[in-house]
Amino acid sequence: MTDLPVLRLKPKMDPRRIRFGYPWVYDNELVLDRRTKAIPAGALAVLEDAGRTPMALVAANTGSRIVGRVLDTPEVTELDEEWFAKRLTRALALRERLHDQPFYRLVHAEADLLPGIVIDRFGDSCVVQPNAAWAERHIEMLTAALLRVTGVTHVLKSAAGRARGLEGLDDRDAVLAGEAPGAPVAVRMNGATYMADLTGGQKTGLFYDQRPNHAFAAGLARGAQVLDVFSHVGGFALAALAAGASSALAVDGSQPALDLATEGAGQSGLGDRFDTRRGDAFEVMAALAEEGEDFDLVICDPPAFAPSKQALDAGLRAYERVARLAAPLVRPGGYLALCSCSHAADLDRFRMASIRGIGRGLYRTGRTAQLIHTGFAGADHPVHPQLAESGYLKALFFRL
Amino acid sequence: MTDLPVLRLKPKMDPRRIRFGYPWVYDNELVLDRRTKAIPAGALAVLEDAGRTPMALVAANTGSRIVGRVLDTPEVTELDEEWFAKRLTRALALRERLHDQPFYRLVHAEADLLPGIVIDRFGDSCVVQPNAAWAERHIEMLTAALLRVTGVTHVLKSAAGRARGLEGLDDRDAVLAGEAPGAPVAVRMNGATYMADLTGGQKTGLFYDQRPNHAFAAGLARGAQVLDVFSHVGGFALAALAAGASSALAVDGSQPALDLATEGAGQSGLGDRFDTRRGDAFEVMAALAEEGEDFDLVICDPPAFAPSKQALDAGLRAYERVARLAAPLVRPGGYLALCSCSHAADLDRFRMASIRGIGRGLYRTGRTAQLIHTGFAGADHPVHPQLAESGYLKALFFRL
Repeated sequence: MTDLPVLRLKPKMDPRRIRFGYPWVYDNELVLDRRTKAIPAGALAVLEDAGRTPMALVAANTGSRIVGRVLDTPEVTELDEEWFAKRLTRALALRERLHDQPFYRLVHAEADLLPGIVIDRFGDSCVVQPNAAWAERHIEMLTAALLRVTGVTHVLKSAAGRARGLEGLDDRDAVLAGEAPGAPVAVRMNGATYMADLTGGQKTGLFYDQRPNHAFAAGLARGAQVLDVFSHVGGFALAALAAGASSALAVDGSQPALDLATEGAGQSGLGDRFDTRRGDAFEVMAALAEEGEDFDLVICDPPAFAPSKQALDAGLRAYERVARLAAPLVRPGGYLALCSCSHAADLDRFRMASIRGIGRGLYRTGRTAQLIHTGFAGADHPVHPQLAESGYLKALFFRL
Repeated sequence: MTDLPVLRLKPKMDPRRIRFGYPWVYDNELVLDRRTKAIPAGALAVLEDAGRTPMALVAANTGSRIVGRVLDTPEVTELDEEWFAKRLTRALALRERLHDQPFYRLVHAEADLLPGIVIDRFGDSCVVQPNAAWAERHIEMLTAALLRVTGVTHVLKSAAGRARGLEGLDDRDAVLAGEAPGAPVAVRMNGATYMADLTGGQKTGLFYDQRPNHAFAAGLARGAQVLDVFSHVGGFALAALAAGASSALAVDGSQPALDLATEGAGQSGLGDRFDTRRGDAFEVMAALAEEGEDFDLVICDPPAFAPSKQALDAGLRAYERVARLAAPLVRPGGYLALCSCSHAADLDRFRMASIRGIGRGLYRTGRTAQLIHTGFAGADHPVHPQLAESGYLKALFFRL
């Protein structure tokens, strides 16, 4: 027997959802009394069904809507470095099959059986996002296992994750092992070199999730003039240039991001074909149309316009507006890639908004659209089968 | 003014759907009288709204549920070789951007603005599927334009399309130009050589649509033992072997298909690592489990189990059964690819059936699944933006 505290399902709750692999238990599914509420955030607990049969070892956080995150079978009653090492080894095996070089998302939370934990690897550095209370509570064990399994020497903690607030966690970054790199790290992807700022950048400094979509765009880019809107550190632009684009213009609101893009273009030997324009993406697109500019390939990869269900309608209107402004910038026979990283806007809704926007943008031109490719996040961002919504990233490629 | 017959929308029908680019008009949307019913199947007509404003040039077939297929604006009143040549040139430009070698789907029907027409190219041969009455009626013009635009020398007609019956068309194949090849044609894809039987094969002898999914599977295959169920001419198996799989076993019900697969393996120099097993796929999977066989990578690419909405429930049960039988054949840490080419089973339904089947197949093993990749048909199979359902092909890659 174990001394672990117990979380018990309400009698009316069907235990089959958990038995079939759903990884979360919500506050309204549990009997929560004074004793359960005293469980420290992130501590381990046993999940029982209403008949007191143990169902799972969970991480508890009674201050969160997600009170229980399934960690293991109920026979497991404590976590040690070896427990983390096994999960990390399993995660690493997938990435080593997918990638020749050690630059990838190493752990993608629930799908890698480490709920709420995201780890990106940049060569001999890892950036950990402990986005759930249990991860924060076990961060030393996790770090030790990570050093051992991967052989990296530097482990940084990024506390920028939006979910940390919901879990009652602070937003203070830290160095967990080794030291923070003094300069941006060079990352090779799709034939280009990207500069990743592991300490000051958005999220973890570089988005690995778009890698296959960068590659698809690059396949269309030979000899093309390319416009990369919401470019961040030049994700699509540099891959397109490396594949033979004749020029690329990167648009972003952040000068530091564009500076990293320019540095990456230089390091890739592509600096002479690369240009940037800082400004509001909507305004820059309108201005480019005004100036009569057009392109063979236009990519728009905006931030999440619909980060929540409440923001869905406004978000879909923003995606439609992006498509409406971007479509006229594409030459006849050219290509338009539209991306969304909004959980709330599912593929069908995002596609409809995009098609509506393209239709409005090309109204009276007689031009029609073909949807030639739908891409998602790379395979180093696996999806938990019971959390279809974690397939957040969508990229639609149209020919206009 | 034109002498073309007129198809008129019923007064209650909203004309905006057509104005916004929907390519079909159904029988219940039109005023159909004796005169319109006399329009020969496949003849041109003008589509008018209820107020007699011309909306589009359409191909008419009052004997079909789809009575009108939009071909062009109403200003265009006849089709000639040049009209076909323009559309083919537009279609060819996309494929030449996508592929170095002339092996691809050249025309994918509505999305290429040639409704009901499918054309696959195999080097200097094309196989045309005229799956709508207007295409059959204009087949000579289409063939002449095809010869001119592509420079191919042989054009075959395949009348195997399921839709031809709905259009009142026969099922007789023909040679439209040049001659039928006397032997299977060698097609290079993903590093392997496939043998395509352009005259006797299923559909057009080779499925180009799975090319990117073959490539994704190949990326997982280094050193792997591979099982390719419903293999046809070895689509997944040969790509996996070319990428370094240690062995591949192809299962199919058709001995001619397996013979072509074996010939392709030989031509690829991969024959010593390739094996086949003819039989019912369900029975073979059950037998392999019985024999204690397992594999690092299992792919199941069955025929359309849900070809229509009526067949949806039975089809989803069949997909679930495939997943249930296949999952236990995958070694821990190995990969399972499940494909569906059913229009009626959309991505969400197919994914749910697959996940349910995997769950049942791995019941009591404690093993869990990660969905690492969702793929669709290749970009030479573009989708018409108003026909989301034409995204028929889905491939789900799981790690188990």
